Amino acid sequence: MDDMPEDACMWDGTVYPDMIRNLREVDVPIDGIRGWLLEGNDRQVVFFDILPTASVPPHAHCAQWGIMLEGEMDLTIGGELRRVGKGDWYYIPDGVEHSAVFHSRVNVIDIFDAKDRYKAK
Amino acid sequence: MDDMPEDACMWDGTVYPDMIRNLREVDVPIDGIRGWLLEGNDRQVVFFDILPTASVPPHAHCAQWGIMLEGEMDLTIGGELRRVGKGDWYYIPDGVEHSAVFHSRVNVIDIFDAKDRYKAK
Repeated sequence: MDDMPEDACMWDGTVYPDMIRNLREVDVPIDGIRGWLLEGNDRQVVFFDILPTASVPPHAHCAQWGIMLEGEMDLTIGGELRRVGKGDWYYIPDGVEHSAVFHSRVNVIDIFDAKDRYKAK
Repeated sequence: MDDMPEDACMWDGTVYPDMIRNLREVDVPIDGIRGWLLEGNDRQVVFFDILPTASVPPHAHCAQWGIMLEGEMDLTIGGELRRVGKGDWYYIPDGVEHSAVFHSRVNVIDIFDAKDRYKAK
């Protein structure tokens, strides 16, 4: 995985140090998306690394709050399109359909309001 | 707690939705700093909300990686000063002394490479 601005390519082409990349990887059924999972008692944090060739089709689940660390994406939440760039955050309420298209390699952190949104590989 | 740009004041003056602010608060011994704690098996995530009147004196502990969501701070890591703004991230290796001064109200997320850096209140 590459395409990240050179100054952001600190660790294995991501902004995530070993303490993040040593977490277990999540099982994501979309090519070009990988992520590392930090599991709390009833919430999950996923540190995503996404290639621009990937896209996330419309889907819905528990509430989700995310922060863009590097890259840009078009995020559609409940039919409303918005551009999300470095430093932007977003909130997707429980049950609201959303989808995403990526304009570059993206590093984004998502917090899920459930303990089982993702499983580890 | 206020002083956050109006468009960032989504939830109780922070960028954190209920799913974050419903976590347990951390016990921080510095006036003007509060945070919510997500505990993993061997790491912690703290969602901080910090007033500009607060400051963090020099200290050291486990490795720490953080992301600035709103606000600005001067962060000194191992004697090197850097300005950290919205969307910036930073890494503090294990055992390296660091301190911070805040130029505005700050929302910042820190991940600690230990399960007991902070205790809940």
